[in-house]
Parts: sequence; C-alpha cells; structure tokens
Amino acid sequence: MNTFGHRFRFTTFGESHGKALGCIVDGVPAGLKIDEEFIQSEMDRRKPGSNEFATARKEGDKVEILSGVFEGLSTGTPISMIIFNENQKSSDYSNIKDIFRPGHADFTYFHKYGLRDYRGGGRSSARETAARVAAGAVAKLLLKELNIKVQSGICEINGIEANSFDFENALNSPIFALDKSVEEKQKSAILEAKNSHNSVGGVALINVKNAPIGLGEPLYFKLDSQIANAMMSINAVKAAVKAVEIGDGILASKVLGYDNNDQIRKAGFKTNHSGGILGGISNGDDINVKVYFKATPSIFIEQDSIDIYGNEVTAKLKGRHDPCVAVRGSVVCESMMALVLADMVLLNMSSKMQNLKKVYAK
Amino acid sequence: MNTFGHRFRFTTFGESHGKALGCIVDGVPAGLKIDEEFIQSEMDRRKPGSNEFATARKEGDKVEILSGVFEGLSTGTPISMIIFNENQKSSDYSNIKDIFRPGHADFTYFHKYGLRDYRGGGRSSARETAARVAAGAVAKLLLKELNIKVQSGICEINGIEANSFDFENALNSPIFALDKSVEEKQKSAILEAKNSHNSVGGVALINVKNAPIGLGEPLYFKLDSQIANAMMSINAVKAAVKAVEIGDGILASKVLGYDNNDQIRKAGFKTNHSGGILGGISNGDDINVKVYFKATPSIFIEQDSIDIYGNEVTAKLKGRHDPCVAVRGSVVCESMMALVLADMVLLNMSSKMQNLKKVYAK
Amino acid sequence: MNTFGHRFRFTTFGESHGKALGCIVDGVPAGLKIDEEFIQSEMDRRKPGSNEFATARKEGDKVEILSGVFEGLSTGTPISMIIFNENQKSSDYSNIKDIFRPGHADFTYFHKYGLRDYRGGGRSSARETAARVAAGAVAKLLLKELNIKVQSGICEINGIEANSFDFENALNSPIFALDKSVEEKQKSAILEAKNSHNSVGGVALINVKNAPIGLGEPLYFKLDSQIANAMMSINAVKAAVKAVEIGDGILASKVLGYDNNDQIRKAGFKTNHSGGILGGISNGDDINVKVYFKATPSIFIEQDSIDIYGNEVTAKLKGRHDPCVAVRGSVVCESMMALVLADMVLLNMSSKMQNLKKVYAK
Amino acid sequence: MNTFGHRFRFTTFGESHGKALGCIVDGVPAGLKIDEEFIQSEMDRRKPGSNEFATARKEGDKVEILSGVFEGLSTGTPISMIIFNENQKSSDYSNIKDIFRPGHADFTYFHKYGLRDYRGGGRSSARETAARVAAGAVAKLLLKELNIKVQSGICEINGIEANSFDFENALNSPIFALDKSVEEKQKSAILEAKNSHNSVGGVALINVKNAPIGLGEPLYFKLDSQIANAMMSINAVKAAVKAVEIGDGILASKVLGYDNNDQIRKAGFKTNHSGGILGGISNGDDINVKVYFKATPSIFIEQDSIDIYGNEVTAKLKGRHDPCVAVRGSVVCESMMALVLADMVLLNMSSKMQNLKKVYAK
Repeated sequence: MNTFGHRFRFTTFGESHGKALGCIVDGVPAGLKIDEEFIQSEMDRRKPGSNEFATARKEGDKVEILSGVFEGLSTGTPISMIIFNENQKSSDYSNIKDIFRPGHADFTYFHKYGLRDYRGGGRSSARETAARVAAGAVAKLLLKELNIKVQSGICEINGIEANSFDFENALNSPIFALDKSVEEKQKSAILEAKNSHNSVGGVALINVKNAPIGLGEPLYFKLDSQIANAMMSINAVKAAVKAVEIGDGILASKVLGYDNNDQIRKAGFKTNHSGGILGGISNGDDINVKVYFKATPSIFIEQDSIDIYGNEVTAKLKGRHDPCVAVRGSVVCESMMALVLADMVLLNMSSKMQNLKKVYAK
Repeated sequence: MNTFGHRFRFTTFGESHGKALGCIVDGVPAGLKIDEEFIQSEMDRRKPGSNEFATARKEGDKVEILSGVFEGLSTGTPISMIIFNENQKSSDYSNIKDIFRPGHADFTYFHKYGLRDYRGGGRSSARETAARVAAGAVAKLLLKELNIKVQSGICEINGIEANSFDFENALNSPIFALDKSVEEKQKSAILEAKNSHNSVGGVALINVKNAPIGLGEPLYFKLDSQIANAMMSINAVKAAVKAVEIGDGILASKVLGYDNNDQIRKAGFKTNHSGGILGGISNGDDINVKVYFKATPSIFIEQDSIDIYGNEVTAKLKGRHDPCVAVRGSVVCESMMALVLADMVLLNMSSKMQNLKKVYAK
Repeated sequence: MNTFGHRFRFTTFGESHGKALGCIVDGVPAGLKIDEEFIQSEMDRRKPGSNEFATARKEGDKVEILSGVFEGLSTGTPISMIIFNENQKSSDYSNIKDIFRPGHADFTYFHKYGLRDYRGGGRSSARETAARVAAGAVAKLLLKELNIKVQSGICEINGIEANSFDFENALNSPIFALDKSVEEKQKSAILEAKNSHNSVGGVALINVKNAPIGLGEPLYFKLDSQIANAMMSINAVKAAVKAVEIGDGILASKVLGYDNNDQIRKAGFKTNHSGGILGGISNGDDINVKVYFKATPSIFIEQDSIDIYGNEVTAKLKGRHDPCVAVRGSVVCESMMALVLADMVLLNMSSKMQNLKKVYAK
Repeated sequence: MNTFGHRFRFTTFGESHGKALGCIVDGVPAGLKIDEEFIQSEMDRRKPGSNEFATARKEGDKVEILSGVFEGLSTGTPISMIIFNENQKSSDYSNIKDIFRPGHADFTYFHKYGLRDYRGGGRSSARETAARVAAGAVAKLLLKELNIKVQSGICEINGIEANSFDFENALNSPIFALDKSVEEKQKSAILEAKNSHNSVGGVALINVKNAPIGLGEPLYFKLDSQIANAMMSINAVKAAVKAVEIGDGILASKVLGYDNNDQIRKAGFKTNHSGGILGGISNGDDINVKVYFKATPSIFIEQDSIDIYGNEVTAKLKGRHDPCVAVRGSVVCESMMALVLADMVLLNMSSKMQNLKKVYAK
C-alpha cells in the first residue's frame, strides 16, 4: 500500500534514518523531456535545514535518476529516483526507543506491526515526502506540456490568516507566505513556539490554473475525493494533515443553496464557490484546496506517556524538528496535487469514443 | 472507476431514472450470517419520501440479493444486490435537458463525456447512494461480529450547531439530530429554506467505537485518507461533500503542539484530539469524523445559466428535491465508514507474521 | 477478486442455480453505440440446450441492460447487465451435496470457504461465463469501431486435429469446427463419449485481425500474459483450461532461434511464429492463441471419492452436462480475447506524449 | 504496469544498460527474518557469466537492501533492493541502434513509445529478471516459515526430454538438468547451437510441495491463471515464454474425462492430473507447472530486417548472449512461483469469518 495513483502512479520506499529514500514513477508517457535541474530545484524547495523556520537537520537531498530516461526523454518505462540519507543522527532517538511519543505514530506502528524502527519515526517520518516531491516534479513536467500550472503557499499560521493570496510572494518567502502583510506576524508565531520548545500548526493553499474541463472519474475516483486522499496521506513531520477543504469547503455548509451555486454566463462561471470541481469533475475554473496541518507533535516540553512494557513515563524528546511543519508541507501538497492531476489527465483520455478515434486514426 | 475498496470492495451501477440501481460486494469472508431484514432496515433509514424534511420522491427501496448467499450465509463469492426504481418522473426534466443547472454536475458530465443522461442528474444523482447503503449494511454485519460499532447523526444545519452528541436521539429524530436542544431550530431552518424554494447545508458526525488498534495501511491507504476519500466520493443529491475533518480537524491547525498532543497513561489516552487515528492507523480510541455537506444546488429560484449550445438562459427547476441533503447523507456517511473499516479489517490481517501463523496453524 | 481488466474492466456475479447472473462493465468510453441485438446474438452462440453436442439444460439467456446506456449510446457510466436463471434443477444435486465430485472444485471450495453452494457447482460452474459473453459483446462493439476483428473456432476434439482453419465454417458448425474435413470425426468423438457416459477435451483457436501495433503494457501486463490470465480464468463447465499457447507456443521451444525468428521486410513480417506479439506488445500481425480444455469432469461413470466427513464413497452423478465443454468454451475464449484487447486499447492511449497532445489539443 | 501481485506485491525498475535495477517489495508482513545471505544466494543462481552455457556478460549481481528491514526483521514497510549494473557494453549495440532485430521487442517498443533505449534491449532485456529473483527470495523466506517449498529445473532442451525429475540433480547441474541420463545430450545441444551462432529453446518444470489447501481467488485471480500470467510476463533474454501448462496440460485435452479426473480416497487424491489445482484453488497436492521458452532471438547469423526509416537491411548482431535462455530462466520461474504463492497466502487469510476471529481474538 505504498503506491499512489492509477495510470500515472508512483511507489515510494525509505525511512527517516535508513540508507536511502526513493520512488518508482510508472505510467509516464514516452517522449517527455525530463529536466533534471527542475526536479532538483523542486527538491531544494522542500529540503530541510534552509533557515531558522525549519528543522536543523542538513540534507543535500540530491536526487539521482536510475532508469526510465534515455537521451533526456522518458521512454515509457518506470522512472526510478533515489535520494541517499546523509545526516541521520540515530543516537538522538536511543533514549526514547521504548517510549511512545504523544501525537506520534509510535504507538500505532508498534501495535500494528509488533515492532518498529524508532529512529526518527522510521517510515512515519515526514522525510518520506522527499520521494513525493521527486515524483511530483515529473508530474509537473507533464502538466507543463499541457499548460497546466500548480502553485501553493501558506495562508495561515497558528490562526494568523492571510487576507490575500500572492503566489509570487510565497515563492520568495522563507515561510512561503501568501500575504506579505501578515508574514512577519506568522514568522514570529513560529519562532515564539520554537523558543518555548513548542510547535504551531498552519494551513496551505494549493491553486491550479488551466486544468482542462473533464478531469476526475466518477464516482469513486472523483477529482476532489482523490485530492482529499492525496493530502491526507502526507506524513507531516509526524504531524498529520487533519482536514481538507475544496473550494469554499466548510463555509459551503453554512450558506443557502442560492448563495453557494455558481451561476453561469457565456463568459464562464460568475463565482467559484465550488473550487473548480462539480460532481467530482474539473469545470475549467481555478481549483482551490486548503490543507490543514496540525502542529508537529515533536516538542521539547515534557509529556506524559507509557513505554512498550506499559509503564508510565515522562517523554523528553531530543533531536531536530520543524517548529511548523505546514511550511515545508505546502511544497509536498503542491507535489501531490500535480500527481493527482497527471493521473487524471491520463485517465480522462478514454472518456469518449471521439478520443479513441483521434489516437488510433491512421 | 466505480469500485471502492481493496479487499472488501464494492462496485455500484445505476442512475437516478434508469431501471435499477445496485452493487456487487466482493471479498466478503464466507460464513457471515446475512441478515436481510437488517439490510432492509438500513435502506429504510436512507430512503426518500419519509417526511417533510426530505424529497417527496417515493421509493420503496426494496433490496433483493441475487447471489453470494446460500442458506443464510455468505459463501465467499460476490454478493449482488439490486433495487428497482419505481417513482421516476423523467418528464420533470424535459424542460432542462439542454440546460446546465448551476451547482450541478450537468456542465462537467456533458463536457467530459460529450453527452449526458439529463434525467434527474443520471449517475451524478444522490440516488446512487442507495447502493452504498446496501453494501454498507453487509459491512456492518461483518463489523458487528468483531464488536465494532458505527453510528452517525447531524451536528449542524445551516450553521446551527449541536452542543452535545446523543446518538440515541439521532436514531429517533426525523432529521437525525444529535442534540435535542437545537433540533427544533434546525428543523425550522430546513423548512424555511424549503418554503422559500431554497436549500440549506449541514454537517454529519460519524463515530466509531471499539475499532481495534492497527487499522489503516501506511502510507497511501491510511485510515484517515481513505475515510476522506470515501466521504468526498458521495453524490449528495447533486450537493458535494466539500470538507472532511478527522478528530479536531481544523482546530488542530490553530493550537500549539503541546495542546494538541494526546498524552498517554496506563488507562489510555488522556484526550482524543487525534480522532482515534495516529499516523494513519487506528489507536483504539473512538474515531470521530465530520463531513460537511453543501446546500443542495437543486433550488426553485431562477438562476442564470447557459445551455449546451452556449446560449445564456434562465434555469427554472421543477421536480422533487431534498431541502437539506445532509440529513439523509449522514446515513450514507455511516455506510461509507463501515465499508472503509471492513476493508481495513481484512487488510490488517497480514500485518505481521504472527497472524499468518495463527491462520495457517494445523 | 471477481473483477477483470484495468481500464475496460468488468465484474461478474452469480451462481449456477441462483436467481440471476450478471456483470458490471466499467470504463466503456461514452458515445459507443450499444447494439442490444448484437449482444443477444453473442449470448445465443454460447447458450446451452441448442443441440445434441451440448448440455440439455435449457436457458433463454436473455440479457437485460440496467444502466449506463441512454438513447442507444454508452454514457461513460457503468453498464450493468443481468441474465435471470430459468432452468435450474437443484434436485439433481441433492444426492451429492456432501460428496466431492472428482475433477470438480467441490473439494477446494469446501476447504477454502468452510461451506459451499453445491447446486450445480455454484460459482465454479461454467454458467458464470454467460456474464463474460455479455461483457465481451460490449468489448467487441468497441473493437469494431476501430476495425479490429476477433474470431474463434474448434481446432481439435479428443486429439482429432484440424488441418486448416476456416472461421466461416466455424460460424455455421454446431461444434464450431474450423476444418470441415474432420468435422464429422470430431462430432462422432463427442457423441461416442456422451453415449458411454464419458466426456472429451478439445482445443479452441482464437484469431485477431487488424490489432494496431502497440497493444500490451510491459512488463507485468503484457498482452500475452494477460491473454493467458484471461483464458485460464475460464470455468469450463467445471473443466479447467489447462494450457495456453501464443503463436507457435510449445513448438517454439523445440526449434532453433533462426527458425523461430520472424524476419522482416518492407512488406511486413515474413512469418508469424510469434503469434503477433513481441516483448508483450502486438506487432500488427494476426494474433493467434490456442486454448486447451480438459474433458469436463462431469461424467456418469461411477468414481471413487470421499464425502465432507471423510468417508470413502462412490460418486454417481445425475444432471445435464456438456460432453465437450470446449465447444461452447470457444465462444467464451473469443469474448475474453475481446475484453483483453479493449482494455489494452484504452491503456495504450497514454503510451506517448504525442497522444496526449492529440486528445487535449484545443 | 510494472507492479505484480495484490497483497504481496513488487514493482521493478531498470534496463539492461542503465545505472541500476531494483525492486520495491510491498506487503511483507512484519517480523519476517530477512536472511540477506539467502537472498544473495538466489541472485547467484541466476547471475550471468557463470559457465559456458550462459552469456559471457559478467555481473556480480550484488543486491543491497535500502529499506524496510530493521535489526534483521521486516518492519511491514516497503523493502527496496538495488543491483548496480557493472558490465554494460553499450558499444555492442551502436551498429544496430536503428535496426529492428528479428524476434526481439525492438519493433514493438519503437512503435508503441515512439523511441527506444536500444542498448541491450533496454527494459525488454532479460536482465530485468534479476529484480524478480531478489523479490522472489523474500517471498521464499515467507513461504519457508509456513513450510512451503518451491523448486525447479530443466526438463527439456531443444526437444530432448527428461524422463525423470530429480530436483537435487538440478541444483548441482550447470544447466539445472532434472534428468542426469539426458544431461550430456542437452548440454551438447546448447553448445552445438552456440558454436553455429544459433540458439535453442527449452522447458522449465516448477514444483511446489506443501502448499496449503485453499490458495487461489476465484474467479479472476485463480491460482493457475495467476501462475500463467506470472510466467508469461518473463522477459526471457528477449525470448518470450510462449506456453504454460498446469498439471497434465495439453495432454488433458486429449484424454477422456474418466481418465483425467483425479479420484479421491481417504489417503488423498489417487492421481494428480490436475497439477494440484482444482477450480483455480490449490488442493494440497503437489503443484506442477511447465514453462516453455523459445530459443533466444539473439543469434549471430545474418537475418533480414528493416530499420526505423523503413529501409530493408541485413541485421548482424554483436554482443554476448545466452545460447539457451531457458536455463537461467528456470530460476526466474521459480521466483515468480514463490511470488504468486506468497500473494495467495496473504489473500486467502480472509476467506472465512473463522480466520478473522482467530486474528482479532483478544
């Protein structure tokens, strides 16, 4: 169950403190230009150790392509990518190897599997998301060929909300802030939590432009349900994505039908309460999704817990952690969105006989 | 893409105004007592036409089992169930057969497929959820054997929130209200919208008791991501579920890590902010999920739209519709939860070698 | 595990002596003309009770479409079809309800599931193949639009081999014989076995013309491996398909490389030892597959067996059976071939970027 | 489509002349002892360059585990393994980079994908099977814990058949010969073909002992259909497996029903014509499968062909090739059998409610 997607699909492997992480991307159409520099630049956006708002763990996160590319083009065969771990410090975890850290997956992994790799949370670490970003970069290369654009940023930190969304600002902000006017407040919230050995949550906004009408496969592979699935699957440095909204989301449950319906004119939809998705299918409008990250559970305040033998203990964590996992998490959300869309683009090709005739015409 | 689940999986068919709806449930272990009365009673909870808060469409929703059961027990082969449509009025739709109703899937289905069954929304109708409830009832029978309980109710209508959750009250309320103290206000909100030819949204709460620790398959088939997927896949009478929260959900993004972590004592978790799921795996605590339904787009107020030829028109709907689709939707959410859990129960069987030895011991 | 195919996929349900059999065909592109008469004519080719070479069980095998078709065209939603059983005689089986019939699946179903539907073999009956033929007919309609032709016939009965393959003759022969010159001998072999309460095996040949180059998805969904999978999955009236050959098949293992390689000229391949498939992908040449059916195990000679309590007994069968299941089996093989090809046609659409651009061009 | 299996599944990557090959094995239950020496010993059985009967390409085929194992035990997370290529000679292929080699996948890959990695056949090379053997070794470790044994050998080379099957002899024979009395003749056939720049075909026999009753998921994931699928998916040094027989196979189509049925006594089945599989489910008897390999198409005799521009040319191959790919292929067949069985073992766990109760009992 480490595979995601149907036609454009990827499988990941690797743990926080193992030898390497990586992925196999399967279903990439042949003839796609594979721009390795772009893939690395995506890795760099997510990589840890860049500034004071992120974990101090230093990883180069150099990605290497092992297969599926020949003379710069995809060949239609699986593209495998690998990232070697460089900066593990397993010793940080020796004192808690028998302890379940509150808010982490330690307790559930141990009981499900009967044992666990305690070093940095093993497979449940947000480090796994490096492999998603590599796969997502390939998806983005495919989407670019069809002129589809995916972008993201942070719209809320610890309850401090953005009032406007400027994706250019996000690109240049160390916390990917969408609203310059609240960026400093958001930064302060992160640093304050960090200094008090605590952590904060946040919200990422993902936006898609130019998605063709028709993406999404009713009824059990709808565009919105698959986006929710994708976002919820993210290991957010042991913080979990805990809610996903499409379009107006929760607000849509509070207003009347008349106020929520997007009326239509020749020029297009008059509003976009639906977030660009109707009946699980893209309507050509912008797709907007909000992903809510809880505060990372890795904090340095003492907490009550038990160990694997059932004894009550006090958990004191060491190590290096993100004070706000939502920040780097937004890049991962963007990657997951690209991966969902690439899959939907391939799936939608057989929606009508007319398309078959285009492809198989002699 | 009309199949849901991996080991306990179901496939549905049928449209709002076709001959019949139904499902094939595959992967049901042999030897499960199939209580047909219970299955019918689940259908009855969801069926339309029961009271003034629901659509006036009258359907008996009698379910018939066609295969997979012998002498009252499941045989391990696919269980097929069928529900014939009785009360279609296709004529209600003739005046809008070329018009895209705002907020509906008409526009996207037409463009994706190049044609559409306009009668009652065709496959995009909430009527499809009858098949889910039939499948969900079989899932519930399986869960009962393992003492796992799934229940649901309405916690919010048009912004009017429940202050407490009483699932017994929900069972006896015509709007499945969880809080008797706000039930009348919630009812009034529905009727008021109905009388003004409008509609309201609402929120369903689904609760699970006694889920064993260990359900959920990291990383891409996590319990929470699959629940989100399941809920978002619901056709809510042409209203779409637009947000899903697990546990504290959005609130979790607004508090500090220390306040969100569930600390642990011998007696169990001290709090349940996580909603019973850590790292995508059930932790043995109650599972709590909120599903946000938008107000159904089927309203009788005139709206701007275009037709399939691109002309601007005024859409005037006829027909019979739920003024608040969240109400009957809560039963569907409960069914989807049962279906996800049954699948996870089967998947989790091979999590450790110890389990293989139990099953294959001679 | 009652679903076959990836993009063009079908799920079947039903047992020999249950209420009904049927299937859900998913992934059919919208806009395909659904010719119900053609579908019924395919059912009629397979249906039992037609002549002295087949079982005496009389079934009309009328197929009814329940969903997925609107105004004669597929809508892109699941096409469900149902066939009600009419001529069950469960009483034929009461005397063997506790006995494992040699060569049948009774023994293995009982041990796998802990119970079994003994009436006519339940789900393990060849009757299930009616649902495959219905699904296969839809696949054939799709292939016809692309000018791909699938045909079949019997090339061997009880060791009596055809010397030439005339598919027109097969269409008009009660035993689908490909070679008129041996047809009478083959018929005699069947009747002789029937009269001595025994049964015979046979071999079906399936041929495909005009398959486009490029069908088949390396490495684990190759055209030939998926054909083998498809053919081996057939319940041949409780007889199992026991071998599948592609092209020269077994002969290819006995000759030298030089003699087996198909050399190439401008005009095409000089020979077709490969059976039209190279590296798991169609090469544009005819696809030829032989499927070997064992003699049906349902014979009326006394045989040694045991009952479900472990007692040694003599099994005496009653009922109505095909003396040579390969005959009607050839129609099922043809259907399965069409289903595999339709799936491969859809899958191959995303093999190269060039195809994406054709479909998504504005 | 580079993934095989349902619950115990693996995904492979890599080409003949790329940087590395490898696989991700997913679904391995936690707590399995991962014996790395055993895995390497399986690699060594298949590796090239060992003797005069195999290709001269020298590869150490050292396998490295990158994830999923902690302190010697599987953790339930994906096990990734990598094998770096060492002895590529891409220059061997420069003269045929635009030419379609007869009998190879060059022609079909080029047309399907619009381009191809011509170096050693790229992904269509038998070199990919190294990854299968690594995955198969993990499957064998699991099967051993349940006392299930898989073995293989060569029963025929170029038409020279074994008269008896001695799996101990196969282990010690450089051509894995099952019958010492014909081994020298078989060796001579290989060397004779090699010396005349030609190649020979052969047949592998795979045998399973102690498979529990009940493996196989009717109807579309039967044990025999999935075995056929697995074997046909093998890239046999650009030779393809062209036929698969289960049990008596083709012979079963030539005898009468009475002679083919396996009658039953208290002590078990009196014969094993069925090859241990009835109705797609294992019956507890030995499983026997024959896999027919065509002679490798890589020969050094001049052959007619065309190039990618459509010109007629004479193909003259250089490079290093197996004169009889069936030999090393038998090890791959054994691995694929183990992989199918491991998957079926996991799938069968949920066949009956009784098993659920064993696993979830408190």
